[in-house]
Amino acid sequence: MNKVILLNKRPHGIPKLSDFQITSEEIPTAKNGELLLKTAYVSVDPYLRGRMNDAKSYVPSFELNKPIQSGIIAEVVESKHADFKKGDFVSGSLDWKEHQTSNGKGLHKVSSSDAKLSSYLGILGMTGLTAYLGLTEIGVPKEGETIVVSGAGGAVGTVVGQIGKLLGCKVVGITGSDEKAALLTSTFKFDHAINYKTNPDIKEAVKSTCPEGVDIYFDNVGGEISDAVLANINKYARLPVCGAISLYNETEVPLGPRLQPIILTKSATMRGFIIGDLSEKFPAATKQLTSWLNDGKITFAETIVEGFDNIPQAFLDLFEGKNKGKMIVKI
Amino acid sequence: MNKVILLNKRPHGIPKLSDFQITSEEIPTAKNGELLLKTAYVSVDPYLRGRMNDAKSYVPSFELNKPIQSGIIAEVVESKHADFKKGDFVSGSLDWKEHQTSNGKGLHKVSSSDAKLSSYLGILGMTGLTAYLGLTEIGVPKEGETIVVSGAGGAVGTVVGQIGKLLGCKVVGITGSDEKAALLTSTFKFDHAINYKTNPDIKEAVKSTCPEGVDIYFDNVGGEISDAVLANINKYARLPVCGAISLYNETEVPLGPRLQPIILTKSATMRGFIIGDLSEKFPAATKQLTSWLNDGKITFAETIVEGFDNIPQAFLDLFEGKNKGKMIVKI
Repeated sequence: MNKVILLNKRPHGIPKLSDFQITSEEIPTAKNGELLLKTAYVSVDPYLRGRMNDAKSYVPSFELNKPIQSGIIAEVVESKHADFKKGDFVSGSLDWKEHQTSNGKGLHKVSSSDAKLSSYLGILGMTGLTAYLGLTEIGVPKEGETIVVSGAGGAVGTVVGQIGKLLGCKVVGITGSDEKAALLTSTFKFDHAINYKTNPDIKEAVKSTCPEGVDIYFDNVGGEISDAVLANINKYARLPVCGAISLYNETEVPLGPRLQPIILTKSATMRGFIIGDLSEKFPAATKQLTSWLNDGKITFAETIVEGFDNIPQAFLDLFEGKNKGKMIVKI
Repeated sequence: MNKVILLNKRPHGIPKLSDFQITSEEIPTAKNGELLLKTAYVSVDPYLRGRMNDAKSYVPSFELNKPIQSGIIAEVVESKHADFKKGDFVSGSLDWKEHQTSNGKGLHKVSSSDAKLSSYLGILGMTGLTAYLGLTEIGVPKEGETIVVSGAGGAVGTVVGQIGKLLGCKVVGITGSDEKAALLTSTFKFDHAINYKTNPDIKEAVKSTCPEGVDIYFDNVGGEISDAVLANINKYARLPVCGAISLYNETEVPLGPRLQPIILTKSATMRGFIIGDLSEKFPAATKQLTSWLNDGKITFAETIVEGFDNIPQAFLDLFEGKNKGKMIVKI
């Protein structure tokens, strides 16, 4: 039998395990022109939370009692498709199923000899592209500028900081544990890291680590952390909004200081994006990331959880900040 | 004697007449290389409110017991400067004084034969440039798109709407009286106008006048009106933040719905600006505005108040929305 994870209930506020249902079905068979895929690695990402709501959003909502989808690396175990053969590994947006068929559309072959397979969900996948293109296309860093990254210990944040350093900027990360803060300044070469859970005054902490002001704020979290950073931005600051994990589970419209006065007085630019907005830049970005990775100039962290049944818990753990870098479930 | 208007007290909240002091001094005399100017028209603008605070802002604060400055058209009554002669009119950022001397720096000669002198404070001055460049450089309108303008009956708003129409867009204005709403759809050719003071549900009013969604929101006001428009923006919306008149007199940090979720899910771009940010575009913009004005394709409204002593009251009236178009004091 073939295990499947369905959206059982639309989460209200913080998602719970009971919002998911693990069920099973027959293993499907590949028809002509199709592949049978066996799931190897599953990416769990904060943005999936938005797709669990009924609201119209930038990506379609998941349907109730239907499988969740996310970035997945799968092995081709049977192929009736000319472009793929048994033993190939592919990357794509696939269902949370142990096995599934596909007509090959939207799948990309990935090679375990070029890089670790899971890296195609991280540094060489959407995560790396999001970090690189969000920073370079929207943040537009100039050498010597100061970048602050929130959610800095997460998948995108750890990459943004390293790219910022490679581009000659000062980088300060905001994260939620001393362990992650230490990782940022050691492994990932951030100039400073602020633990927002123990620091009593984040605004002051940003000010003291960035006395020259903040030129780019790469925002993964929204909420009060962002308020604290925005209070320290320079004229002409660029503010890529990549995520808002602190707000995804709000059940009421969250209130905060109005941003227009600061956006106005600082001639700042705040721009939201999803990586699909920048798809024409993927080939060049992938080439740059691969080159940095091969030259040892950039590294990445993964938190690997094992077992298909643990996918929902791994997803829930994102909201507790339990991941260092990319959260991946190995099947 | 020469009347002068000083900043008497930094306003707390809504400015009052007692925050200003009318005093007098000797009429100064022009030294070699200087001009003696006689003030003819004074521009009063909402952004001056910010300069009355002590806070560091995008333009320097006015000093206590020193004259206020704003855009002024003045007549050269005596010249000891090679570039100017008696009888010339000039435009510049000058003191609220009946007479003053200048070394000519930052002054531009304007001609009463080419256009009404007061128009150099409005459509052919900062107002027109702000409207044109804010809309075209930050709003980047494409034919057929929908533009919403707040503060639509004000100096910048009336011009933004007309330019939007000239560029082939649909334009909806939000303003504070039925009289101004009627002016927007008649004189200024807006497609729709919403009176926010009488409309019980601005969000719904924007939705019903813009069922196709809002591509550009030209924001002069901030606050709840902006919340209502932002609830109706399309994917990739552009949000030039030109002013925030509803927030200038707040004495506490104003709270509102957090913007990051909508900026993110709509891949929207919010950018604040002051016109000085775009100064390299002034010559081309002035040429375009002059051409439209001469061809009768664009018009402008002025609310002219007479008398030097009435400058402070004219400024206060801006916050009551008493102006239609540009508020100018004729001396």
